[in-house]
Amino acid sequence: MAAWGERLAGVRGVLLDISGVLYDGGEGGGAAIAGSVEAVARLKRSRLKVRFCTNESQKSRADLVGLLQWLGFDVSEGEVTAPAPAACLILKQRGLRPHLLVHDGVRSEFDQIDTSNPNCVVIADAGEGFSYQNMNKAFQVLMELENPVLFSLGKGRYYKETSGLMLDVGPYMKALEYACGIKAEVVGKPSPEFFKSALQEMGVEAHEAIMIGDDIVGDVGGAQRCGMRALQVRTGKFSSRKAETTQMAPSR
Amino acid sequence: MAAWGERLAGVRGVLLDISGVLYDGGEGGGAAIAGSVEAVARLKRSRLKVRFCTNESQKSRADLVGLLQWLGFDVSEGEVTAPAPAACLILKQRGLRPHLLVHDGVRSEFDQIDTSNPNCVVIADAGEGFSYQNMNKAFQVLMELENPVLFSLGKGRYYKETSGLMLDVGPYMKALEYACGIKAEVVGKPSPEFFKSALQEMGVEAHEAIMIGDDIVGDVGGAQRCGMRALQVRTGKFSSRKAETTQMAPSR
Repeated sequence: MAAWGERLAGVRGVLLDISGVLYDGGEGGGAAIAGSVEAVARLKRSRLKVRFCTNESQKSRADLVGLLQWLGFDVSEGEVTAPAPAACLILKQRGLRPHLLVHDGVRSEFDQIDTSNPNCVVIADAGEGFSYQNMNKAFQVLMELENPVLFSLGKGRYYKETSGLMLDVGPYMKALEYACGIKAEVVGKPSPEFFKSALQEMGVEAHEAIMIGDDIVGDVGGAQRCGMRALQVRTGKFSSRKAETTQMAPSR
Repeated sequence: MAAWGERLAGVRGVLLDISGVLYDGGEGGGAAIAGSVEAVARLKRSRLKVRFCTNESQKSRADLVGLLQWLGFDVSEGEVTAPAPAACLILKQRGLRPHLLVHDGVRSEFDQIDTSNPNCVVIADAGEGFSYQNMNKAFQVLMELENPVLFSLGKGRYYKETSGLMLDVGPYMKALEYACGIKAEVVGKPSPEFFKSALQEMGVEAHEAIMIGDDIVGDVGGAQRCGMRALQVRTGKFSSRKAETTQMAPSR
């Protein structure tokens, strides 16, 4: 393993995952991970540019930033790259009207989007919203379309809450892909477009950036495929044995 | 296309799918498909052996046969090959104690199975039982196991009720496979073991049998891979445009 100085040579910008890196969600909003509030503060005092790159799709950016500030983090809405606003941009560009299978907490991000007479489906981490009835409705909408288009805000397998591991949107994306015989378009990590937009907003080239996350596929693998370096933290879902059954490895 | 006489030469036994071939499920139990009650009666009067081979996993065999008899069909419980009893046999043979994610209607089939301290998961078409909470529980049980074993009673994409298309167990199997990074064992069509047990119960060799179903993958493809002939009916889910996006084709 290379020494830290060597490993970080030429780095000008740091992309930070949020859930599992800064805090674990859960009852009452969740809890900051030990040392993370101070780590963010130190990064911000350094010469490095910092941006938050999350697949959080249960909360609007405003609510997420409010929670993080309440937990003690120095973060503002403009510093966060999140999938819901990225999806809205794509929907507008392509003239698509989504049927939304999303958590109520993120619905406000879609306030400016026409959802009448839907010609695509957007799913996000809907939590309890992933009822059979709601999944069947999304399925039926897709099956009625001549060219079914499914957007998935991220494709994570699961995430960690203070109470334990929780199914993320990925398994439900796979369910709809199989049911309809289609392939979803992923908006969020590990989509290269998503990482590129975060780099652009930070004003840093891929080779000058490092991604710090707890997901070996979504964070580490995705960032590396974009030419970035990546570090995997040992918090969040990392500790789960199953998180490591993959061929990807953090940058060394 | 070959003439009917030629196509049926040497056939001694007929395997009949139930849902979508004999009846469409739905409100009030569902409705017999036009002509099917008389077709079963005629088959039974013929020299052919008849067996019912279903992936029905929302109802016990007793309830299913009761419904079919009420709809006018000549069928008894001993003539039905269904996945839940087949799964019970496997669980007993391998000393497995399942966590069950199944419909209440089929739970009685598992009455003789030890479900304490589970070391595997069995999912079936649970309908509304596929809540986020229930899926997450099955996921957590699997993630706690050293060697996670998942059985899926069938892997159908969807089925047709009188009210429209409904998600079957297959999409939920795919969801858990992806979440846990595992591969499920399918009990039911198109598993070769399942077809073979039906043939054995009928006392007919594969090349002497024909499968009649509405599912191009589960019925037609599965039976053909076992050396049987297969016919696809134009009822049930057949009529849906998407049912035909496959490389399989009925026997000609």
